[in-house]
Amino acid sequence: MTLRQITEHAGEWLRGAGPHSDVVISSRIRLARNLAGYPFVNRAMQRQRMDILETAKQQITSSHRISDSLFWVDMRDSPRLDRELLVERHLVSRQLVSAADDSPRGVAIGSDETFAIMVNEEDHLRIQVLRSGMQLAEAYEQINRIDDALEDSLDFAFSPRFGYLTACPTNVGTGLRVSVMLHLPAIKLTGQIEKVRRAARDLHLAVRGLFGEGSEALGDLYQISNQTTLGRSEAEILADFEQTVVPQIIAYEQQARAALLRDRPEQLDDRVYRAWAVLTHARLLTSEETFALLSHVRLGVTLGRLDAIDLRSLNELLLICQPAHLQRIMGKTMNPAERRIARANLVRQRLGVRRTP
Amino acid sequence: MTLRQITEHAGEWLRGAGPHSDVVISSRIRLARNLAGYPFVNRAMQRQRMDILETAKQQITSSHRISDSLFWVDMRDSPRLDRELLVERHLVSRQLVSAADDSPRGVAIGSDETFAIMVNEEDHLRIQVLRSGMQLAEAYEQINRIDDALEDSLDFAFSPRFGYLTACPTNVGTGLRVSVMLHLPAIKLTGQIEKVRRAARDLHLAVRGLFGEGSEALGDLYQISNQTTLGRSEAEILADFEQTVVPQIIAYEQQARAALLRDRPEQLDDRVYRAWAVLTHARLLTSEETFALLSHVRLGVTLGRLDAIDLRSLNELLLICQPAHLQRIMGKTMNPAERRIARANLVRQRLGVRRTP
Repeated sequence: MTLRQITEHAGEWLRGAGPHSDVVISSRIRLARNLAGYPFVNRAMQRQRMDILETAKQQITSSHRISDSLFWVDMRDSPRLDRELLVERHLVSRQLVSAADDSPRGVAIGSDETFAIMVNEEDHLRIQVLRSGMQLAEAYEQINRIDDALEDSLDFAFSPRFGYLTACPTNVGTGLRVSVMLHLPAIKLTGQIEKVRRAARDLHLAVRGLFGEGSEALGDLYQISNQTTLGRSEAEILADFEQTVVPQIIAYEQQARAALLRDRPEQLDDRVYRAWAVLTHARLLTSEETFALLSHVRLGVTLGRLDAIDLRSLNELLLICQPAHLQRIMGKTMNPAERRIARANLVRQRLGVRRTP
Repeated sequence: MTLRQITEHAGEWLRGAGPHSDVVISSRIRLARNLAGYPFVNRAMQRQRMDILETAKQQITSSHRISDSLFWVDMRDSPRLDRELLVERHLVSRQLVSAADDSPRGVAIGSDETFAIMVNEEDHLRIQVLRSGMQLAEAYEQINRIDDALEDSLDFAFSPRFGYLTACPTNVGTGLRVSVMLHLPAIKLTGQIEKVRRAARDLHLAVRGLFGEGSEALGDLYQISNQTTLGRSEAEILADFEQTVVPQIIAYEQQARAALLRDRPEQLDDRVYRAWAVLTHARLLTSEETFALLSHVRLGVTLGRLDAIDLRSLNELLLICQPAHLQRIMGKTMNPAERRIARANLVRQRLGVRRTP
């Protein structure tokens, strides 16, 4: 498996399956780890970062306990489009991609895209596991296995008093960040998103958009994650998510959907079918509009108002309508105006529109 | 032929045929006439208005030279919906319809809807002829025939110095108003409508929307008409329209359409197909939005970008999406919210959408 081969698939986290997949797009767990005896990345010399990268790559790619199949991408010799592709797939962070060109850094990616291990991002190692739907327990089990495998051969910086040491104090302790990506169109439509935001803040959770801060409304997709890891056990953080926070938001969203269906069925269908109509007929589409339209169609599909498409195909569109994926599929670089045309053509083609009208 | 029977047809002026029908929706000529020996309508007593109504009705309905087939509608005993229906078809004015309930007034309508003669509107008689496309000469010939036939039996107020006398000074003289209804989506899109408006003003012409002032943008439909009739012969007024004003605006609009096609084909198609998509999928439609969408579809049809519908069917939709027509077709009175649902259903049905998606 190489980077070239993953472009067209949706990847594990967009499979559109798993428990509560009508609301929960994906579950993600990430661990921050640093090698003992080296400064944190932002303090390390080029030479030291090279050492870290080589050591980590060597251990990750040689360990059979991490995965049967993974591939390594060195950021230094990856073309810009390839790097953007990984960001769009949520396999690496914007920060890893946009560091100085010669900065030694890379990522190991599981061929099934359930995990990625970034080396020399903010911390020496950032291990993340991604799962479709509400699968935090499964994700936790997998990330523990990877962490254990790595700890056998790597010496992690650890303090008996604070726990795992990390570049940013908010990660010190377990180094654990748990997040779920939720599709909340009905909460958004009925104007209750601020209520969710306030409730999350009271629980010290962060609410972000699909790509972090500033992308909040994009496709009505929200990432909810814990803010700090110090002073709480991994089990406590996970239990919060699995037993309290996520079930409550799911119930909230489902109540809002039921209310739409009961009180405003025509408005609901109007929104769903207009979105479907524009996706299947437009000649120009921005990715922002495509995200918004796909959100309304997804709402229609989950409520049984529209059955022309399944969640997996919607997720694939969500992925391939993004600039890097689009250009990779079309096999050429394109400016934004060209992309709007190509995106509309691709969406119509994928939705099986042979000829319109 | 009765009022009940005309609901579902598009009427002469919306036939979508006639010269230059890609730009000129319809040609209209109107004459204002008053009976000698009676005060103007706003000064006349109820008794006198009764006399005028009876005399005019008698002469109009008994003259075989006006038309083989016409029907009479007395406004006093017409239900509100029927009266609104006539306004929506441009056969009577808003003013005739909304006068006091017991005010004696009525209209004679040709069964083919090429003409209507209002009695006791602003003037005792308002004769109008409507034709599809650019047919001012034909309309003028027909209205002259009607005027001559009426003048044989009715004594019109006439001054050798001023010409025909009318309630409003702007109509004194020939009493002639010439107007054309133009579809100018490309001029509108390219932001040149103000230029047309200024040029029209310099020629003492009025530019109004589909239903007069305040409805200007509705469906990109514009009515251009002469403002005054005093001091100019009928031939001069007509020649202005036929040889100068309308051909110039048509050329303008066609240049703008050609430019869209040449310079922005994707933007053009995007607009056209999105409009088609929403018309064929929406579950809620206001008449304003329907007008706007039909305008874009019409532009696409005239430019050969979309062939799923013809101009006549588009015109029919333009007519039946209006509130009174919609309620007549559905056979019941409906509030605005109910109409939005019924309108969307009717439009989908008429566009032959069996099942969406």
